[in-house]
Amino acid sequence: MKEIRVGLIGFGTVGKGLAYALLAQKERLLQKTGTTFILSAVADIALQSLPAEFSSTRLTNDANEIITDPEIDIVVELIGGMEPARTFILKAIENGKHVVTANKALLSVHGREIFRAAAQKNVEVGFEASVGGGIPVIKALKEGLVANRINFIKGIMNGTANYILTQMTDHGTPFQEVLMEAQRLGYAEADPTYDIEGIDTAHKLAILMTIAYGLHVNLSDITVEGISSIEPIDIRFAKKFGYRIKLLAISRNHGDHVEARVHPTMVPEGHMLATVNGAFNGISFQGDTVGDVMLYGPGAGMMPTGSAVAADVVDIGRNIAYGCINRVPALSYLPEHIGEPTITPMQKLVCPYYFRVTALDRPGVLSIITGIFGKHGISIQSMMQDGRDSEEPVFIVFRTHRATEDEVEKAIADIDALDVCTAPTVKIRLLNPE
Amino acid sequence: MKEIRVGLIGFGTVGKGLAYALLAQKERLLQKTGTTFILSAVADIALQSLPAEFSSTRLTNDANEIITDPEIDIVVELIGGMEPARTFILKAIENGKHVVTANKALLSVHGREIFRAAAQKNVEVGFEASVGGGIPVIKALKEGLVANRINFIKGIMNGTANYILTQMTDHGTPFQEVLMEAQRLGYAEADPTYDIEGIDTAHKLAILMTIAYGLHVNLSDITVEGISSIEPIDIRFAKKFGYRIKLLAISRNHGDHVEARVHPTMVPEGHMLATVNGAFNGISFQGDTVGDVMLYGPGAGMMPTGSAVAADVVDIGRNIAYGCINRVPALSYLPEHIGEPTITPMQKLVCPYYFRVTALDRPGVLSIITGIFGKHGISIQSMMQDGRDSEEPVFIVFRTHRATEDEVEKAIADIDALDVCTAPTVKIRLLNPE
Repeated sequence: MKEIRVGLIGFGTVGKGLAYALLAQKERLLQKTGTTFILSAVADIALQSLPAEFSSTRLTNDANEIITDPEIDIVVELIGGMEPARTFILKAIENGKHVVTANKALLSVHGREIFRAAAQKNVEVGFEASVGGGIPVIKALKEGLVANRINFIKGIMNGTANYILTQMTDHGTPFQEVLMEAQRLGYAEADPTYDIEGIDTAHKLAILMTIAYGLHVNLSDITVEGISSIEPIDIRFAKKFGYRIKLLAISRNHGDHVEARVHPTMVPEGHMLATVNGAFNGISFQGDTVGDVMLYGPGAGMMPTGSAVAADVVDIGRNIAYGCINRVPALSYLPEHIGEPTITPMQKLVCPYYFRVTALDRPGVLSIITGIFGKHGISIQSMMQDGRDSEEPVFIVFRTHRATEDEVEKAIADIDALDVCTAPTVKIRLLNPE
Repeated sequence: MKEIRVGLIGFGTVGKGLAYALLAQKERLLQKTGTTFILSAVADIALQSLPAEFSSTRLTNDANEIITDPEIDIVVELIGGMEPARTFILKAIENGKHVVTANKALLSVHGREIFRAAAQKNVEVGFEASVGGGIPVIKALKEGLVANRINFIKGIMNGTANYILTQMTDHGTPFQEVLMEAQRLGYAEADPTYDIEGIDTAHKLAILMTIAYGLHVNLSDITVEGISSIEPIDIRFAKKFGYRIKLLAISRNHGDHVEARVHPTMVPEGHMLATVNGAFNGISFQGDTVGDVMLYGPGAGMMPTGSAVAADVVDIGRNIAYGCINRVPALSYLPEHIGEPTITPMQKLVCPYYFRVTALDRPGVLSIITGIFGKHGISIQSMMQDGRDSEEPVFIVFRTHRATEDEVEKAIADIDALDVCTAPTVKIRLLNPE
């Protein structure tokens, strides 16, 4: 009987998930692989003891004990953040350990260094849990869709942001109120910045783009806008137009350049992504061979993420047992075939837009505003006015045909400069129909 | 540079898909695997010549030439049906060839014989394309969700049936009319029996259950009802109750026994499976570690299915190149751990039901019918009556709480025996909330 020894750094939520998954599935994994997966050691800086179930697992406060333990085959890093996670992973690789991590922040910034080090030492780096929680999205992209040029990536990749938008949509509650409730329920962290400002989603998009296109995409390549400025009124208008507002990661592969953006997006209500609600994730790919595929499931959480980490551990364990390390390249393409991305400048983006203009309800205002859109080549598809026959400001809402970001920004500047406009115009991009 | 030589039996729709996928993705696959995948030979009984792009591929009318060719590594069987597909596959295995097939009908009936032969010769059998067309559902189940006990399988696995039901739902058109239109458009075959009677869906469910549970499930284990008796009126009533009617494959793993059924099912309109429309498939699993995951995409078609077949070819090619054949067991569990299923008797099934009773609109009729339900322990959740104040028969429609199939059949027999009931009662099962 073969044995694979796992050393875990970080016994937080996901760490516990992995530990319990390996424990509960021990017999099943043996029946599937002929191998016993043993959690040999746990390093956690703050922990005094492990739960009773893990009596045969060694606990240490020093991650280096795990990294240097000659008996350990796979080091699982689940502490998150940049340092000391980066150092631990690099040292583990240096010591010839295979590594599994869920650390999207680290990979989207220092991925290149880590994957180069791993290639040099011929060890594996598994990161299924870094995107889409329990959904096997990395494996689908690297293996299931191997015979495809990926044309698009579109997805809801952050459960917290999607939970907040879903609550706002269902109950009309303002952002701040839903956020506080989400924090109370444990759906949002005390510092929710990464989740609500789209940064976590951008981390994940960078990872997906890298393996989908064979390009070294970094966090800094991605234009990011969050959801904190979304107001219930825009969600209501979106509904009237037949749309839902979702925080989407969107990338289109133009061949010589690639789009890379994360922002609130109006999605047609019949679209599969519009039906992904609550804390769930939905990630879709369009491949030139397969067409459109979407994977849906829990994007976070102790056991779902533990499931993905365990899948990586098993994958690497099989490769150890069969002597076929790096049978599938870590980043899908062989290292020598991964190039540098040219990112489509945001100014060149072309998509339909939603605008909410706040203006005094005076005769001729609509004509002036539509005149400005016309001057910038922006064609209106439909308009709604929330008029009140008074001198109070009203909302005039537009849905446009496809326009360039460049012209849109100029048009908004012109509109917001009008005396009759009493608040900045709100702009939300629509999902391109394709 | 490594080379993998593929021999293809059957140059029909899916065969062409594989051939074009391997051609178009040749350079990409080389960049991902370091291996060139070559379509060496095609056998097709009816073909006189291959398209010009395949000038370096040998064409034969005799599949045995491919099966016995010592240069061929992987034999791809895409002729479908029982014979001669079974004989070709067994001979290929006998000759030490790895096999890839999309033949769900064959695997769900003769899978055991084929997988046993493959295990004996230590060759691989890939069958990703047999379920869910281009969606990498088999790989997700065998690898991505490896650390899970699968509790449920639920899915829309036949694009033709789903297309027909979607058209009936959107336009209120009767079944026969939509079927003829689907045949005209090429969405349904000249003989649509397998698709509309649920048999194709049952083939796929048998395969999924086998790998999900580690049990040898056969087509004959599955209770199958098709959609040909679904009427627009039931779709309309379902909508009023907040449901969509879908042809679902459903299996629940009770541990000591497993449900195995395919039938029209009322799915709550908020459920992800209710939003899978047209010719698409949606297949969901519930794992004890991960929770609910769904995969969505094109369930059929030349290129989507070609994508899945190509993924299997690449997977096996990697194993050949790295010398790790059967790194992942063909049926997920190692052969010695695959057991015999005990199928839950359909009579013991418990779920909510929809009934449409056709009765003369006389005083006291409702009381008699609800009395019969009560006698059989069936509790009504809601009722709608389409009364017309006349002697004409009317529809009385019920949605029940969970009841056993056994009692439901007795109740229907009692109701249909009433003088006032002028047509057989229609019964549609609801998706269990879980």
